[in-house]
Amino acid sequence: MAYRRTRLMEERLAGNRERILRATRRLIAEGGFRNAQIAAVAAQAEVSTGTIYRYFPSKAELFVEVLTEAVDHEIEILRDVIAVQTGARAQLEAAVASFVRRALTGPNLAWAFIAEPAEPEVDAERIRGRKRFGDVFKAVLKRGVASGEFPRQDLDAGAACIVGAFTEALVGPIGPSRKTLRDKERLVRAICDFCTRAVSAAA
Amino acid sequence: MAYRRTRLMEERLAGNRERILRATRRLIAEGGFRNAQIAAVAAQAEVSTGTIYRYFPSKAELFVEVLTEAVDHEIEILRDVIAVQTGARAQLEAAVASFVRRALTGPNLAWAFIAEPAEPEVDAERIRGRKRFGDVFKAVLKRGVASGEFPRQDLDAGAACIVGAFTEALVGPIGPSRKTLRDKERLVRAICDFCTRAVSAAA
Repeated sequence: MAYRRTRLMEERLAGNRERILRATRRLIAEGGFRNAQIAAVAAQAEVSTGTIYRYFPSKAELFVEVLTEAVDHEIEILRDVIAVQTGARAQLEAAVASFVRRALTGPNLAWAFIAEPAEPEVDAERIRGRKRFGDVFKAVLKRGVASGEFPRQDLDAGAACIVGAFTEALVGPIGPSRKTLRDKERLVRAICDFCTRAVSAAA
Repeated sequence: MAYRRTRLMEERLAGNRERILRATRRLIAEGGFRNAQIAAVAAQAEVSTGTIYRYFPSKAELFVEVLTEAVDHEIEILRDVIAVQTGARAQLEAAVASFVRRALTGPNLAWAFIAEPAEPEVDAERIRGRKRFGDVFKAVLKRGVASGEFPRQDLDAGAACIVGAFTEALVGPIGPSRKTLRDKERLVRAICDFCTRAVSAAA
């Protein structure tokens, strides 16, 4: 009986944690980090603010956890997108296009994860996240250089440049003063073209 | 007499403000924002912490002012660098190279201004700063497209991509876990090549 109660309690605890994270993500998707104050998260998750602080000592730590999970998820998607393409150039294009399209489809979430002014802890996690994205693109560049599709180049610099380029190009289009994009695919194409030309042989 | 005292007082007040900003900048150059706590700034500027708060209601506001002045200064330098070059491609290369070299020469300052985890107010000012840098590069791209040096392209996306690329490529090399670069010019070249190829005609 003691064992069963413990397991039930653990399940309830894990359930609370998940519910808080899901509620936070939903609120961020609706209006960025500033829409996800602890009181709003508590209401959305149907727990007390005290319960939230039991799992996440600060709002910043809650946001960092949501951000880390989002990066995990985006990297999985990038890997899947890359896996079905043949050739480094096609992989690069598909990965950048996928990331940009997803950001334009969920602009509040993307704005929060990429650029919304936030706590220093969130900034630090963003730096780690961009580095992790960079590692994905570095592997693509490496394959492309090995196969001769791309010329020899500084892979670390190139990968960082790619991630910097497509994230910064999104800041205006996903930010709070964004205008409705008449043609999302045109922007997707512009950013993809920039990145693929950048790592290809010069004309 | 009353008039003279007022003028002297104004001069002293302006002097204090300048001294605080200069002290903050020096401390940041030595060790980033985290090296520029209010107590350290007070000691360096030889004023009381109370005096600092009279001019800057919060540390974040002090940092934002230092950052804004730094962006003003860097933009002036970019404009000067661009002014002496003929042709958009040469202007683009010279501007990117100048920015990257300056960052590598003053890595703590560059780290703080570009990426060091900081208050939300600093994040917001960074977004504005990158937009201002983007405007400089957009003008170069526009001239290059007009002259036929560059193919037609989305100027806003291209300018943002350039700024995102060279700033993100610097994050590792100027960050706190940076290694000593054996060949700074190689990195300068890699980043310049990335940016110029990106906006030029495809091979």
